[in-house]
This record gives sequence, C-alpha cells and structure tokens, in this order.
Amino acid sequence: MNIEMIRAARERIGTNLRRTPLLSNPALDAIAGRRVLLKAECLQVTGSFKARGGWSAVSAIPEDTRRRGVIAFSSGNHAQGVAHAAKMHGVPAVILMPKDAPRAKVDNTRALGAEVVLFDRETDDRDALGAALAEERGLTLIKPFDEPQVIAGQGTTGLEIAEQAAEAGVREAEVLVCCGGGGLTSGIAMALEAEAPMMRARTVEPEGFDDVKRSLETGEIRRNDRLGGSICDAIVTPQPGDLTFPIMHRLCGPGLAVSDEEAMRAMALAFRHLRVVIEPGGAVALAAALFRPEAISGSAVIAVASGGNVDAALYADALERFAS
Amino acid sequence: MNIEMIRAARERIGTNLRRTPLLSNPALDAIAGRRVLLKAECLQVTGSFKARGGWSAVSAIPEDTRRRGVIAFSSGNHAQGVAHAAKMHGVPAVILMPKDAPRAKVDNTRALGAEVVLFDRETDDRDALGAALAEERGLTLIKPFDEPQVIAGQGTTGLEIAEQAAEAGVREAEVLVCCGGGGLTSGIAMALEAEAPMMRARTVEPEGFDDVKRSLETGEIRRNDRLGGSICDAIVTPQPGDLTFPIMHRLCGPGLAVSDEEAMRAMALAFRHLRVVIEPGGAVALAAALFRPEAISGSAVIAVASGGNVDAALYADALERFAS
Repeated sequence: MNIEMIRAARERIGTNLRRTPLLSNPALDAIAGRRVLLKAECLQVTGSFKARGGWSAVSAIPEDTRRRGVIAFSSGNHAQGVAHAAKMHGVPAVILMPKDAPRAKVDNTRALGAEVVLFDRETDDRDALGAALAEERGLTLIKPFDEPQVIAGQGTTGLEIAEQAAEAGVREAEVLVCCGGGGLTSGIAMALEAEAPMMRARTVEPEGFDDVKRSLETGEIRRNDRLGGSICDAIVTPQPGDLTFPIMHRLCGPGLAVSDEEAMRAMALAFRHLRVVIEPGGAVALAAALFRPEAISGSAVIAVASGGNVDAALYADALERFAS
Repeated sequence: MNIEMIRAARERIGTNLRRTPLLSNPALDAIAGRRVLLKAECLQVTGSFKARGGWSAVSAIPEDTRRRGVIAFSSGNHAQGVAHAAKMHGVPAVILMPKDAPRAKVDNTRALGAEVVLFDRETDDRDALGAALAEERGLTLIKPFDEPQVIAGQGTTGLEIAEQAAEAGVREAEVLVCCGGGGLTSGIAMALEAEAPMMRARTVEPEGFDDVKRSLETGEIRRNDRLGGSICDAIVTPQPGDLTFPIMHRLCGPGLAVSDEEAMRAMALAFRHLRVVIEPGGAVALAAALFRPEAISGSAVIAVASGGNVDAALYADALERFAS
C-alpha cells in the first residue's frame, strides 16, 4: 500500500467520477472560529466517496476474472459504489446489504442493476455469506475498506483535497474524516503525507461507536460493544481494518467523536449555508469541525462530507429540529 | 449589451465566485426520457446565480462612486448577491426587501453586512422607494435584472454551461432557465449564441405567473395579474424587462410553465438523486426538464437550478410529500 497505488487509481478513474467541490461559507467559519472547507463527497457519483474505491477495485481486476462479476457487502454506500463501477464496466454485481439499511440505499443499489441479498446485521456472519456466494458463482469479493485497491481509490479524495486547498490558499490544516473501517481515512492520510505534508488526517466517529478513536489511543485494535442504535449507519463498523489501522496509527492525529444530535445540527447547517444534502454518518466530520473547536488546531479545518444518501423522513426531522 | 460585456464580467469575477458543477444522475435521465444535466447555481456563493450579476455590477462602478455604496431591491437572492459583492469590495449596501421574503434570505442578507429595509410587495412602489434612498445617500442603484452589467454577470453562467456541456460530450441541447425578469435567461441566451450555437435557451416560470411565456408568444411585453400566491417567490416579477425582453424574443424558444407541485417534486428528486438543495423558484427548470418531455426536443436537456435559499419548513414539506 503506497502513494503510487493512489496515483494509479486516479489514472484509472479519469473523468468517470467527479472532482467534487470544496465548499465554504462565512457563517460556518463564524461558528467554528476558523476557516472551514467542506470536501463535498455527497456530490460524488452514487452520492458518496465509495464510488472511488469501487471504481478503483473493479478496474484493477484482470479482465478475465472481472467478467464473472463482483460481490460486496455494505450498509449501502459501498454497495452503490461497487454496483456503479460494475455497471460501467459491464459486469454483474451481487450486493449483500443489512436488512436495516436505509431504503433509499437499497433502492438505489437495485436501480444500478445489482442483485441485492439482504442479511441480518446482528445475527448473520456477512463475511461467511459473502465468501460462499463468491465461490459459488466465481465472483470477486470487494471488501468495503480492508482492501488495498479500495484504499487507493478512497485516497484519490486526498489528492484532490491537497490541490483544492492549495488553490484556496490553505496549505496547513487538520483534515477531519468520517470514519467507519478506515478506508477513506487511511487513503486520505497517505495522499496528504505525499502531497500536503502540513496537513494531518483525523478520524471522526459517532459517540458510543468510537472503535477507531479508542484503537488510536491504545495503539491496538479495539471493537465496538454494539453495532445498532446510531443514526450514522454508514460508518458503524465492528473495528478498524488490519490494513487501515496501521496506516491511521502512523499518520493520524487523535480521533474525535460527536453525538447523533451534533451530526443532525451539522446536516441542518449544511442545508442552510452550503445547500448540500449530507447523511448523518457523512456529517460527523463537519460536526466536529463546528462543535469541537477546542480539540482542533490551526486557522483552517477541512471536513469531508462523505455521503448524502439519507431517507427523506430523517432529513426532514433534522431540518425541523435544527434548521429554524 | 453584447458578448464582450459577458466576457469582461467573467474577467472581473475571476476566482471570486464558483464555477458551479454540472450534475447528472441516470434516474433523472430515465424520468425525462433524455439526458438531463443540472447547472447547480444553488451551490454558487450566496446560494444563487445572483452573486454573478451583483459582482459584475458592483465591480463595474467607477471607484469614486462605488465608495458611497450601493442599493438594491429584491425578493432575496439579488439582495444577497449585491450584499456579498459590496462586502467583498468594502462598500456599504442597502437592500430593500419585501416583507414576505423567506426569513432565511432576510437573515442571510443581514449576515452579509447589508442594511435591510422592508417594504410591502402589494402596496409600496419599490422603484420610487429605492430611487429616494439612492439620491439621499448617493448610493448607486443596482437593478435586479434590467441592467446591462447585471445581465453580463448572469451571462457568465452561459459561458460555463457551454464549456461544461462540451466536456460532457453535449453540444446540442435546450437550456431551460428559471425566469423572473429575464436577466439570467437573456445573459445565458447571449452566451450560448456566441459559444454554443447549437444550444437554445428557454424560459420556465410558475403557472399563473407566466408573463414571459405570454410575452414571447405575443411578441409584446405582458404583465402578471397578481404577484403573490406562488411558492416560487424568487422568480415572480411583474413583467420582463425592457432590456431583457428583446434579447429573449430574439434568441429564446417558446416559454414553459410548471405547477408549484411539480417544482416541489423536482426539489425532492434533486434531494434524492443529486444531493443538492434547490428552492422552489430555482426548481422550475428541472421540473420542466423532467415533466414536460413532449415540449422539449433533442437527446439532452440542460436545466439551471438557479438558487437554493429555501426555508426549512417548506423544504421538509416538499420531502414529506414527494420524496418517499
């Protein structure tokens, strides 16, 4: 796993995906007490950064093998990323999704032509299920984060952040990243190490599901006690990955955590001041940028809005409670 | 009024404003029956294209005069555009706003440092009020649409559309524009005439407030019977401008009109498939692209999402009714 893999992923992605904008608004700067730049990956194709890892991984499979198809398990965004990449490469995709995934994500995955197989997040072993299906049909399993080509694809976000921040006059900043298994964070951290050495990635998680924060504190992989009960479904994973954790441990600052309510407040502020739709799990980095000023250093902070696939009722609820 | 003024406006704007993205999603293409590209001016600084006209006009005033300040009247988006340009140029701004303007727009205008003076849309003569204040304080009046430098600024949207559509492989398309007084439409129409002659601008208005559509049909300026009662507040104006109408009459195809409900459906679809926030008046062009397929020709259609400043309660209502 190295920076050349990230650069190669960017070459393969080319213009097939979007260079998402870096957005800002003085009202958010005022709340945070420093300049806030939002990398709007919610505007990415499929509505999240996962399109990058999906494209990188699918495009890296040798053509003979790729033709048989791919399989992935995901709470939704990785599903859509892989389904999109498979469709654009003309190969079949099977996606294992938890039964409690937001309906919009299940519907969107099916709309992308994938076959969706539902499993129970608490009782089923998704790894075993996936491996069995992969063997049966000759599918290539694309893991959601602990897979070098997926990390390389997510890392292209970091290459863009380095360029776009420089264009905006920012060369030194903490880069807050919504963190599940650590694919996006570790990819960005490696890209920044190479392209923006004055920037440092930091993870942000929902309070109560802060396995990465505790792992970074102790230097050893820690697990979450439970996996259900957060509205930030997109970034609740059992523990950081075997590949991603050593990268994060080497390169990232201390982890941060915010409450579900703070994530919803950040969603409402992005609605009003940036006019972008962010899902709860995609809003925790912005929430930390806005509501944890004392835990962040420097005159500018960059937050990654990792996704925008949120059910309308939950979004309307966030606006009604926090956007008045 | 000519293309060179639009190119000069783009030079003055430089990197002070955003080159907003051209977004798309296969789900919207499927609804429309053709490729749909959305020029997301809701992601522009201040949340609408009006930042372009504001910047163009304020930057074109000789410095000695500009120093005394500027004045504008507006239902909200022009207000923010002028307030932003004045603030960035370090000069005072007075904004006359109707009492029924969305609260978010009034608040945002004040947050941009402008002095807000409220008037009654039905009973006050806003032109007379503005002229009196301008004379009293030596302010330069910046009209919302019937002003060459404002049209030139809005026209920069058209230069970007021509470039970005070509990058996306589209050289022939109807370009649907949310239309109030016609500043954005006439500016885009002139830019397309010069830079993308296979594209044609068309106006979209709310049903019952289709003064421009009727004016284009008859070849003479027609007025709206009433000015209140549409949720598309941003684009309800008494009649097309004396400068904008001849340009639109020469260059635009027949006007289109959509219902308030169709505008809200388009807002909900943009939420789900593009993750951008569009206000009702900014969604009528997308609504026409999606729901008037028989009135549009060609294999691709470009819709301008002109703004994203919408009160949270109205937005939540649109999602609850149409995003399920």
